[in-house]
Amino acid sequence: MLQASVSGTVIKSSLIEPDGGVLVDARVPESERGSKTLEAELLPKVSLAKIDVEWVHVISEGWASPLKGFMRENEYLQSLHFNSLRMENGTVVNMSLPIVLAIDDETKERIGSSKDVGLVGPEGDLLAILRSIEIYKHNKEERITRTWGTTAPGLPYVDEFIIPAGNWLLGGDLEVLKPIKYNDGLDHYRLSPKQLRNEFDRRRADAVFAFQLRNPVHNGHALLMNDTRRRLLEMGYKNPILLLHPLGGFTKADDVPLGVRMEQHCKVLEDGVLDHETTIVAIFPSPMHYAGPTEVQWHAKARVNAGANFYIVGRDPAGMGHPTEKRDLYDPDHGKKVLSMAPGLEKLNILPFRVAAYDTAAKKMAFFDPSRSKEFLFISGTKMRTYARNGENPPDGFMCPGGWEVLVKYYERSVTEEAMPAAASA
Amino acid sequence: MLQASVSGTVIKSSLIEPDGGVLVDARVPESERGSKTLEAELLPKVSLAKIDVEWVHVISEGWASPLKGFMRENEYLQSLHFNSLRMENGTVVNMSLPIVLAIDDETKERIGSSKDVGLVGPEGDLLAILRSIEIYKHNKEERITRTWGTTAPGLPYVDEFIIPAGNWLLGGDLEVLKPIKYNDGLDHYRLSPKQLRNEFDRRRADAVFAFQLRNPVHNGHALLMNDTRRRLLEMGYKNPILLLHPLGGFTKADDVPLGVRMEQHCKVLEDGVLDHETTIVAIFPSPMHYAGPTEVQWHAKARVNAGANFYIVGRDPAGMGHPTEKRDLYDPDHGKKVLSMAPGLEKLNILPFRVAAYDTAAKKMAFFDPSRSKEFLFISGTKMRTYARNGENPPDGFMCPGGWEVLVKYYERSVTEEAMPAAASA
Repeated sequence: MLQASVSGTVIKSSLIEPDGGVLVDARVPESERGSKTLEAELLPKVSLAKIDVEWVHVISEGWASPLKGFMRENEYLQSLHFNSLRMENGTVVNMSLPIVLAIDDETKERIGSSKDVGLVGPEGDLLAILRSIEIYKHNKEERITRTWGTTAPGLPYVDEFIIPAGNWLLGGDLEVLKPIKYNDGLDHYRLSPKQLRNEFDRRRADAVFAFQLRNPVHNGHALLMNDTRRRLLEMGYKNPILLLHPLGGFTKADDVPLGVRMEQHCKVLEDGVLDHETTIVAIFPSPMHYAGPTEVQWHAKARVNAGANFYIVGRDPAGMGHPTEKRDLYDPDHGKKVLSMAPGLEKLNILPFRVAAYDTAAKKMAFFDPSRSKEFLFISGTKMRTYARNGENPPDGFMCPGGWEVLVKYYERSVTEEAMPAAASA
Repeated sequence: MLQASVSGTVIKSSLIEPDGGVLVDARVPESERGSKTLEAELLPKVSLAKIDVEWVHVISEGWASPLKGFMRENEYLQSLHFNSLRMENGTVVNMSLPIVLAIDDETKERIGSSKDVGLVGPEGDLLAILRSIEIYKHNKEERITRTWGTTAPGLPYVDEFIIPAGNWLLGGDLEVLKPIKYNDGLDHYRLSPKQLRNEFDRRRADAVFAFQLRNPVHNGHALLMNDTRRRLLEMGYKNPILLLHPLGGFTKADDVPLGVRMEQHCKVLEDGVLDHETTIVAIFPSPMHYAGPTEVQWHAKARVNAGANFYIVGRDPAGMGHPTEKRDLYDPDHGKKVLSMAPGLEKLNILPFRVAAYDTAAKKMAFFDPSRSKEFLFISGTKMRTYARNGENPPDGFMCPGGWEVLVKYYERSVTEEAMPAAASA
């Protein structure tokens, strides 16, 4: 067990155990699919929205281990109040977001006293069985306030998926009857935690550092990632592997869509900004909550389950502007502070990073130096998108040209599409 | 170590350690008061409101052990997000309510870069020193939502003490320069955790069960307490002691005032409803948050520090009606569920109780029997106060006559006072 230290932190080496010790796999083996599908057809049915299917995907592959299905009330309450679950053996695992399935009164009525239900996808296909179910109240106000720390209208996940949802939550153990596929040309990027762990082993990684993102990669991100690798090598690791892990589930309307981001990420690797040999690009299938310090724990915990033992956390992770006030919704420093103290994440090495910004003197992205703060330009995700949307170029050295071109083309297409009257309304 | 079991729960015996192993005592020894007071006089001053003094009292006697003063940001964030604090040795203690001191911009300015400040009581008396201070942002919206699970206007503690408070929080270690006294004729009931522990030892208690309340004691409460004693004796304890522990700090305007409640509690003991020999009546100096499942953890944790190893929890602890909707603010079952899962409280034996209600057939308070639910009458705190206020008698056997008389007289006085024009406005 190698131990080293970055800025006073004790570093644990050797790849990391999944939470609860065993990676959950809720996918029914192929040999049993036929019989279980027949069984499921006789059960009361619950219709899933697209967002629910994203969570089925997440749970079934073990990202939320040891969670075996949608939360029952005991898990929900622990998540809401403690951001963690106590296991039967007394150990604690992190679990900061309620992973729940909402149903309406009519569905509750239809389920009646059935112990199991069938889950049906948006296209009407039988996706899964939920076993030993429990139905309990969906107190939306309490869920929203304790998760987001605000009730301001305009929280994307809340407005789209909680306010319109039913007044009941349905918990139980999941058995997924067939692999979740999106058929968007990106399924080969959707590696499960098990596949990622295998890939780390195949590459003989002795450290894996995860980088969560929902924005295009600019040279500031690349600086963080390359500098992390350098530091890990300095600590004595021989083969640190970067997991570049864009979030693939629901994002808010003005975020860059997944397909465009994946294209951009590929260009960044092609242009040599990141190193092919020591980088794995894969999609993290979770939807985005934009719940700041509460959500960053989920982002880190899920990567532990995928085998990452180092996690890079920057300024204001999973944050956004306050929906109704002119300020960040969360204190930009709270994310890394809360993450570093989060129950169940003691085993993860958290790497808080200095802010990277555009150094107008050196004409490149560099770590912010407060002694010459006036020479630095901060380019937020919003600002970057505004440049690209308006066809303006960002300062030289902000992003590799190939990557930037992907964004510009995406916004050109969007503008054309917006300007064109849709066929139906013509 | 005696182990027994009530309804499946494993019971730990032997009196209980304070959180963190050592009871905090932030009161300066008499021999040092003079020199420290001189020192304090030279420090920047911070004025305390009455509510802040209540918290100084609570912290100084060790109810919040291992907390040594008003929370610094690391403690505040852990309390807000995890309802617990991780100690340096990796153990976890419960800490569900932020115990913080708010200051305004002007005070922050005045403190400047001073490392210590003097705390001045509402009468202008120098009460304490706060050492190695830290000033950080008071995000009220986040504090309120994560503590109460709502932002509805009408939460008593929020409206009185948070909304009007300053935008900064001031943390640090407390040194209290003189004993906190209220001079209301009740100070002899204000036993510190240390005094209570000594009293339990003196009485040779082998189990201490705490009952938190902020209402007059009716026969339903008495039934719970007496039945708990019976169960503890059945388990093999020889001398279980009841800590009848009314809350003495801030309560909402329509709650019965502390003085009246103490008089009523005395009558209940005089009338023999509770047993003098095996009961200790003392005041818990904390203010009330009315924060349901979040606050009940604080109520239990503080009693652990005072030496109670059993805690009675009933329906909807620390709850109230939703301020703007026609429902309970909290699910009445969440309190005991959350308490039973709360980090740091694993060592406490939690005794959830069946609901007691008025049995109209037996004409006494009895445990609610769902098979003949129509014969039971539920008399809430609000309903009890309404009876007393209107001079109506509650059903026979609801409360001992001596105790009831205290309430009736209190409301008669209030009505007379309300009807009489105040001298100043005459």
